[in-house]
Amino acid sequence: MKKRIFIHEVVTRDGLQIEPQWIPTERKIELVDALSQTGLAKIEVTSFVSAKAIPNLRDAEEVMAGIRRNPDVDYVALIANARGAERAMAAKADEVNLVASVSETHNRANMRRATGASFAGFVEMMPLLKSGGVRVNGALATSFGCPFEGDVPAQRVMDLVGQYVEMGVDSITLADTTGMAHPAQVAALCAKVLERWPGLQVALHFHNTRGMGLANVLAGLNAGVERFEGCLGGLGGCPFAPGATGNVCSEDVVHMLQSMGYDTGVDLDRLLAVARRLGAVVGHDLPGQVVKAGKISDLHPRPAELV
Amino acid sequence: MKKRIFIHEVVTRDGLQIEPQWIPTERKIELVDALSQTGLAKIEVTSFVSAKAIPNLRDAEEVMAGIRRNPDVDYVALIANARGAERAMAAKADEVNLVASVSETHNRANMRRATGASFAGFVEMMPLLKSGGVRVNGALATSFGCPFEGDVPAQRVMDLVGQYVEMGVDSITLADTTGMAHPAQVAALCAKVLERWPGLQVALHFHNTRGMGLANVLAGLNAGVERFEGCLGGLGGCPFAPGATGNVCSEDVVHMLQSMGYDTGVDLDRLLAVARRLGAVVGHDLPGQVVKAGKISDLHPRPAELV
Repeated sequence: MKKRIFIHEVVTRDGLQIEPQWIPTERKIELVDALSQTGLAKIEVTSFVSAKAIPNLRDAEEVMAGIRRNPDVDYVALIANARGAERAMAAKADEVNLVASVSETHNRANMRRATGASFAGFVEMMPLLKSGGVRVNGALATSFGCPFEGDVPAQRVMDLVGQYVEMGVDSITLADTTGMAHPAQVAALCAKVLERWPGLQVALHFHNTRGMGLANVLAGLNAGVERFEGCLGGLGGCPFAPGATGNVCSEDVVHMLQSMGYDTGVDLDRLLAVARRLGAVVGHDLPGQVVKAGKISDLHPRPAELV
Repeated sequence: MKKRIFIHEVVTRDGLQIEPQWIPTERKIELVDALSQTGLAKIEVTSFVSAKAIPNLRDAEEVMAGIRRNPDVDYVALIANARGAERAMAAKADEVNLVASVSETHNRANMRRATGASFAGFVEMMPLLKSGGVRVNGALATSFGCPFEGDVPAQRVMDLVGQYVEMGVDSITLADTTGMAHPAQVAALCAKVLERWPGLQVALHFHNTRGMGLANVLAGLNAGVERFEGCLGGLGGCPFAPGATGNVCSEDVVHMLQSMGYDTGVDLDRLLAVARRLGAVVGHDLPGQVVKAGKISDLHPRPAELV
């Protein structure tokens, strides 16, 4: 029996949110519908936040209403406050993703409030979410470092995971928002979290900003984590690192895990087919490697002179 | 005490050999001289092979004669036959790198002979090399898979490592010539080799063709390997994967290892300074990430509205 690993796709949320040009609603719906047929466990479809803050996701309601749902997939929406929670529930999200930053400076820059204020808001929202029967994921941005503050104490991450668990979230995500994690740190933090909360569903969200994306996935995997977020084509990025690659690339993650003998549930050829169309949707090249190089198992014809 | 890891730089050999335009001898010498001041353990300077096969390295003698040597660095030259051995010894290489492919088809495509014939030639060359006092490294191309044949049996790799050991090489390199290795395979093969030959100096040579370069370094590291080859800027590549990245990027490898607490002996800032100049030498962008994104420790100013 191969060990099962679950893949969460974030391209239409984390990938498209920083694209400078408007991506038409129809294209987003096509993308989600195609991804729904690949065997992904979760798809983070959009975010219900201010249209001024994230103009490219201002069609969150239309996208959620337009997609054809596969009952085997959980459709997730990111929210930041109670208004977002109401919108996500009205749009029938299977799961809402709460996000706060471990770093105070990053939370203030992103959310215009202290991390503690973000958490106080989440606690207030929980009864509404629970009564609506929606799953709740608690994500921690900058879990492995902050681009302004630098190192983030592991104990601070543990405290905030504890606050999420106490308020009753169903799962958590540790996010390396600007690509600062390294494998030794990932191994140590994941071991701590899984030891303290053995039954907790933990996902990891990495960026490949400094080339360590798949190495960090490997470190998390070796520590016992079974869920990884990825972004089709490696879209997304870090606003402080122009030219650096974005999120870890979903199809490259799936390719590595399948090569290693894990069962991701994903049909890699189908996922690669969707990835091949993504460049045309966003109008630029993508950092994903397997789309360019082929799978390990894609062999080349023997040189003609040797045949 | 931090554990010591040794970095071997191959940019002027493996990196420049597939560049389509001529790189002037003076630029190559400047590159090696700058690299000699960064703390690298070995620099593979050039190859003494047919000028017809590798036109960009036809100045091997001039480059070897022109560099200013640092006594702490081993200067390596790749050779394929006895003529190459004589030229490398005349040029006072500290080490020669013998290369044969584990895959018969790849060896025939690359060397126009069977793998066994390559090894027979090496055995004949050993007395000359030993009498000249030059170190000998035995490299195995396609150790983790062949682009023509596919899977390469681990037992075949073990047999060929055994042949290298028996003929008296000082060290070996397992090379993932076209980026087909995955971390589980790297972990298993390295464990086998280190268990069978506990005192043997083993280096790993990876390509990032399918995004797994640093994950494979991590797997080798966890298996106990202490030496890794890298290519400045991530130059180099795989002729079958246009658009895919090349060799693992030296400065990204060093950045990961230092972040994890290893002592690489390398001054990362100096290495990054050389990497920044490489794009101008080759006239195109390079896949290295840390040059673009900065080190994990390079922080950003707090957003103005929060100061």
